[in-house]
Amino acid sequence: MRTALSLGRRGQGQTWPNPAVGCVIVARGHVVGRGWTQPGGRPHAEPQALARAGDAARGATAYVTLEPCAHHGLTPPCTDALVASGVARVVIACGDPDPRVAGRGIAALRHAGITVDIGTLRDEAERDLAGFLGRIHRGRPEVLLKLAMSVDGRIATSSGQSRWITGPGARRMVHAMRARHDAVMVGGGTVRADDPMLTVRGLGARQQPVRVVVSRHLNLPLDGALARSAGDVPLWLIHAADAPDAAIAAWKGRGAHLIACPADRAGLDMGAALQALGAAGLTRVFCEGGGALAASLLKAQLADRLAIFGAGLALGADARAGIAEMGIDDLTAAPRYQLEEMRAVGGDALMLWRRR
Amino acid sequence: MRTALSLGRRGQGQTWPNPAVGCVIVARGHVVGRGWTQPGGRPHAEPQALARAGDAARGATAYVTLEPCAHHGLTPPCTDALVASGVARVVIACGDPDPRVAGRGIAALRHAGITVDIGTLRDEAERDLAGFLGRIHRGRPEVLLKLAMSVDGRIATSSGQSRWITGPGARRMVHAMRARHDAVMVGGGTVRADDPMLTVRGLGARQQPVRVVVSRHLNLPLDGALARSAGDVPLWLIHAADAPDAAIAAWKGRGAHLIACPADRAGLDMGAALQALGAAGLTRVFCEGGGALAASLLKAQLADRLAIFGAGLALGADARAGIAEMGIDDLTAAPRYQLEEMRAVGGDALMLWRRR
Repeated sequence: MRTALSLGRRGQGQTWPNPAVGCVIVARGHVVGRGWTQPGGRPHAEPQALARAGDAARGATAYVTLEPCAHHGLTPPCTDALVASGVARVVIACGDPDPRVAGRGIAALRHAGITVDIGTLRDEAERDLAGFLGRIHRGRPEVLLKLAMSVDGRIATSSGQSRWITGPGARRMVHAMRARHDAVMVGGGTVRADDPMLTVRGLGARQQPVRVVVSRHLNLPLDGALARSAGDVPLWLIHAADAPDAAIAAWKGRGAHLIACPADRAGLDMGAALQALGAAGLTRVFCEGGGALAASLLKAQLADRLAIFGAGLALGADARAGIAEMGIDDLTAAPRYQLEEMRAVGGDALMLWRRR
Repeated sequence: MRTALSLGRRGQGQTWPNPAVGCVIVARGHVVGRGWTQPGGRPHAEPQALARAGDAARGATAYVTLEPCAHHGLTPPCTDALVASGVARVVIACGDPDPRVAGRGIAALRHAGITVDIGTLRDEAERDLAGFLGRIHRGRPEVLLKLAMSVDGRIATSSGQSRWITGPGARRMVHAMRARHDAVMVGGGTVRADDPMLTVRGLGARQQPVRVVVSRHLNLPLDGALARSAGDVPLWLIHAADAPDAAIAAWKGRGAHLIACPADRAGLDMGAALQALGAAGLTRVFCEGGGALAASLLKAQLADRLAIFGAGLALGADARAGIAEMGIDDLTAAPRYQLEEMRAVGGDALMLWRRR
């Protein structure tokens, strides 16, 4: 199952709206087939692994990270493929809450006389599949908020210098993180300050994540890197309904996909924005700030995980804060996270936190 | 030698102005004596270990973390004790730059026919003894700056709430860190905000570290915890020469030791302040902020190491900064640190950084 989980993770960022599943077929103590959800979300993991196994699947055990589908979608049901292969036993890490599956996969396998065990490494599977599961349960993608800051939480000097706070190792890892997500999201301030491309670079050719920019008034440079590349790499812009018509038309003209969201005096309703991203199929969103977007996600309890890169330098209170004003008077009102993992990345410290 | 180093560390915070040295006597593969510098700085490690070894020291090897002293101070020279014991070989981690020793210890041992090896685990020894060595080389104690902050570098909400950012595990560790230092240092703002005691608590009876408060104008509460305890636990106040005479007299009356330092518009000259602490014998200073003192130490490149406790919560840019304004426009001007160690402490992340 551990192997199946690691195979499943290969598909992260590539399979949305489908889950990134892994499957291993074991016959007489030997792995005879391995598979994972392919880019675009199909073929699914099970038929891939069964095809590798061939006749060796007869009487074997299939380890699969998510309950196999039992419905005819764009591919035939994986339960049919498992039954046809002659596997004797299927071990499943976690159930699929998709109403089209939701226990029907397990039932179909059992109905065909296959032994089914469920729950092996369930917690780990649920963590890996949190984006997919969360989209079904709460309608929105899982959000990992990344911030690369000095030891005192600063992302730029008072004059705006930000290159570089963290070292090349951390910056490379950020590209790898982007690659494992369906979308990379930033606020408009970051676009205006850094003119970023927001693509995955230096990791070989692959499907690029959707680029999402949150900009209430769509006051984004029409001559920047995002505008120039909007025809090549998906660019989705989240804005308020009252954004200028001219800006909406201009960005549509450049190939961007526009998503209007409710807003009040405090800004765009990020809960609604994430619901819209979930409805569009996104399961895993990697947010890279800036400070205003980070603060609004944190305040609304919408940042499921934090990836904090801490760089070994101090910049002081007059430097630019990585997280903007949150209006927290009482400590009990602060969003709390528990430490999941920490390690050195190049000369920087990486801390991964999960929302309590 | 690794055992000797770990014995030596037992004395940290207890032996100033003397170094905290460890010594192990090994005869025919067995440890026959162990010793470390005792509280107050004497007896030294070597006579302690030799006394335990007794006759077994004859022909044995002594491992000692610092070159043995060769001069008559308040104790007779350790070299004499080693020669008298009949040890055949002395292995030393690092030389003692104290002008009264500085090679004379090694020479005396060799002159007596003892084999002397030097440099075993030198780097580790120099790290452990950095406070003592630094005081000799640059006249000031080593400074470890501790800051307990939210992931975004905040130490209190905008309304001043700071209890608690970090958890009980981190707070206990702070007491253990205090115990390993000669002095605990804070700024006047912290005293006014928190009315701290700055003692070591919960670790059994021991010699308390000196409490140092940096307060230019000595505008500190005369009815607070520090004032009440100044007769029992040493309290040193660093102030500008132009601090009010009444305040100076009042604090002297309460038993505090006053240290006047140069100051300019930017504040007290912390380089001069640390020189004064070095002249008074301190080798290891544990600074616990607040933000203004942290910023002035960092700006002046006087914070040798950082201990950053990162707590799993975010407070936003309107919360109180752990490091005050530093006036850094250019990233190259920022003080840079390299990561020494990181680990989880309770639910918090601890990062130890060393100045590049």
